[in-house]
Amino acid sequence: MTFINENFLKLSETYLFVEIGRRVEAYCKTHPEAAIVRCGIGDVTEPLPDACIKAMHKAVDEMAARETFRGYGPEAGYEFLRHAIAEGDFRQRGIEIADDEIFISDGSKCDCANFLDILGAGNRILMPDPVYPVYADTNIMAGNAISFSQATAENGFVPAPPDAPADLIYLCFPNNPTGAVATKEQLAAWVAYAHRHDAIILFDAAYESFVRTPDLPKSIYEIPDALDCAVEMRSFSKSGGFTGLRCGYCVVPKAVKGRKQSGGEKSLHALWSRRQSTKFNGVAYIVQRAAEALYSDEGRAQVAALTGFYLENARLLADALTRAGRSFVGGVDAPYLWVKGNKGMTSWDMFAHLLEQAGIVATPGSGFGAKGEGYFRLSAFNIRENIEEACRRLAAISLEKL
Amino acid sequence: MTFINENFLKLSETYLFVEIGRRVEAYCKTHPEAAIVRCGIGDVTEPLPDACIKAMHKAVDEMAARETFRGYGPEAGYEFLRHAIAEGDFRQRGIEIADDEIFISDGSKCDCANFLDILGAGNRILMPDPVYPVYADTNIMAGNAISFSQATAENGFVPAPPDAPADLIYLCFPNNPTGAVATKEQLAAWVAYAHRHDAIILFDAAYESFVRTPDLPKSIYEIPDALDCAVEMRSFSKSGGFTGLRCGYCVVPKAVKGRKQSGGEKSLHALWSRRQSTKFNGVAYIVQRAAEALYSDEGRAQVAALTGFYLENARLLADALTRAGRSFVGGVDAPYLWVKGNKGMTSWDMFAHLLEQAGIVATPGSGFGAKGEGYFRLSAFNIRENIEEACRRLAAISLEKL
Repeated sequence: MTFINENFLKLSETYLFVEIGRRVEAYCKTHPEAAIVRCGIGDVTEPLPDACIKAMHKAVDEMAARETFRGYGPEAGYEFLRHAIAEGDFRQRGIEIADDEIFISDGSKCDCANFLDILGAGNRILMPDPVYPVYADTNIMAGNAISFSQATAENGFVPAPPDAPADLIYLCFPNNPTGAVATKEQLAAWVAYAHRHDAIILFDAAYESFVRTPDLPKSIYEIPDALDCAVEMRSFSKSGGFTGLRCGYCVVPKAVKGRKQSGGEKSLHALWSRRQSTKFNGVAYIVQRAAEALYSDEGRAQVAALTGFYLENARLLADALTRAGRSFVGGVDAPYLWVKGNKGMTSWDMFAHLLEQAGIVATPGSGFGAKGEGYFRLSAFNIRENIEEACRRLAAISLEKL
Repeated sequence: MTFINENFLKLSETYLFVEIGRRVEAYCKTHPEAAIVRCGIGDVTEPLPDACIKAMHKAVDEMAARETFRGYGPEAGYEFLRHAIAEGDFRQRGIEIADDEIFISDGSKCDCANFLDILGAGNRILMPDPVYPVYADTNIMAGNAISFSQATAENGFVPAPPDAPADLIYLCFPNNPTGAVATKEQLAAWVAYAHRHDAIILFDAAYESFVRTPDLPKSIYEIPDALDCAVEMRSFSKSGGFTGLRCGYCVVPKAVKGRKQSGGEKSLHALWSRRQSTKFNGVAYIVQRAAEALYSDEGRAQVAALTGFYLENARLLADALTRAGRSFVGGVDAPYLWVKGNKGMTSWDMFAHLLEQAGIVATPGSGFGAKGEGYFRLSAFNIRENIEEACRRLAAISLEKL
């Protein structure tokens, strides 16, 4: 008799974006004429930067010759990439991260999900509401109890630390789904809270490449005290358009420690190394070469252009919402807009209304948590033509119904 | 206070192949003149099949144009690949596996490790000894109790099912590390055992492409009764030389069920879908196109040539060992040779002896479990020149010391 992990039965049957896909597909089947504009899932549409394309063709050719062929790579990633990251994203910006504190992965979704493997049962989990569903779902799978800090219009969607203690804290800025960005002072308050309770922060910086406003932090390590209490996750999905390539990384400073029940400390770096070398086999060599190319001068310029393009999309959507008299946040320093609906409609009602009346796919706010109810998220990841069409449709439909 | 998963503290400090790498590196530092022949880790050396190279160049070009760019793919894999696999590896061979019972992954190591996520605590785990260390390590991480069925010279390294019941059974044929291959009758005995105890078999067929002897099973599903009790894991690492590309797949038939503590059943297919869509984001599009190319006529011929090349390596090593009077198994229908040492030397002694006397890296048998003590594993994955050199050195060194 093989027993299942019954925590899975506490989850909704399907993952949010799978459910959205299912509903859109069902609608398209009955409305084959509908010209759908997808502003739901945050998926990039622009081609990969040319620097990556060239790097990958070269790497593919290397795999075609015995002299340059690469088999198993180091589980934590090739040194050429770990070094480029530690140098380019941290040390050049005054943050002391060593190459071997960078762990290359196939994406932030996997990292934030898998990180729970090295943590014990009984940790008090604290995350914002609304929140990226993977944080919550993976903790439910692990049987952990979750508390939520509420991100509301009142606090500008950046909650302050609560009085009650926690052991593991999830933060994500620029935020998914709200697009809110924490200031250094706000992050510093969280770092102080973590130190006060001997807690660890999992900081999701997947959208840092969209920050343009000076002085807004792109990394939790801009708060110097964070180096012994925070793990940072980053992704090339949105900076380099790697959603279909699968590469990201996790920063685990050696100074970050967890506790044994008996009281002793253990470096999370050692545990994560053991986890990754046992349960993971590294990222494709050709993909790591593509990621490395993002750190060349050419690559950096192309990333800036790519993220700038989506930020301009966000600006266009923001303008359209403003003209339509909608209340929203985000869309500046972030690729998401978090739009308030009128009272009386649930988020899934709004989803259906936008789909049926305007052919726009949005993400229902309630899919991100109870506090998301009454909101919907628009993603700026799209081709310009579709964004412009979405803006026209947002102006045309009966928005007072939303 | 963030508590760690203390099960990790029960593991050896490093994963086996990381430890071997560390010792070889240390030796090379003190013996820079040593010309090392690596027959330790089973890593491929030959370039990728030309069909894959062409498919990847084409896919990279698709990623360079907006019209053909691919972002997030389906978490379980693209339909073109799931279909090619279900058709080519199963249905054409008379085994009824549906496309959506195939889950594309970044490798068998990850699949066999991650599968424990959907299973509960308290399952009785049964695996062979010696065994691929990932099965054991991941169960230790999960806090599971493990029993071992001993693979010995007496049973031809294919243990028969025990009398005592189990809930989850790991089998791997052609076997890593011994190279033994189970017959259909032997597999049928395990399937009958699984049914008797309402257990699930995790069947690791990562080396099936090396089977040449007619009638030896390449899939557990050649035992018809296995379709409701077995999950099969396969990899392109050794068939297509994908160790550096990272792609494999897991077959989860919808009929395979786990139990709730309260007695009800739940399809593992639904749980695995939920796990993968939440904690995984699919395999790079370009890598999936490379895997698809293995199923073309050209690709099939190239896989046959590639695996044939390593099998010839295995034959050369087997001949050298035979000439040297060594007792061993494997090397036929499998890329590994499992060599018995002389009494009085531990496996790590043999490892040091081979490294220092012959510059050959082997894998110490004890790294695969207690019953591996007194053996070492030789891998046939190497360029021909190195295999021939290894054969010469095996003839020259004082093998009676082993």
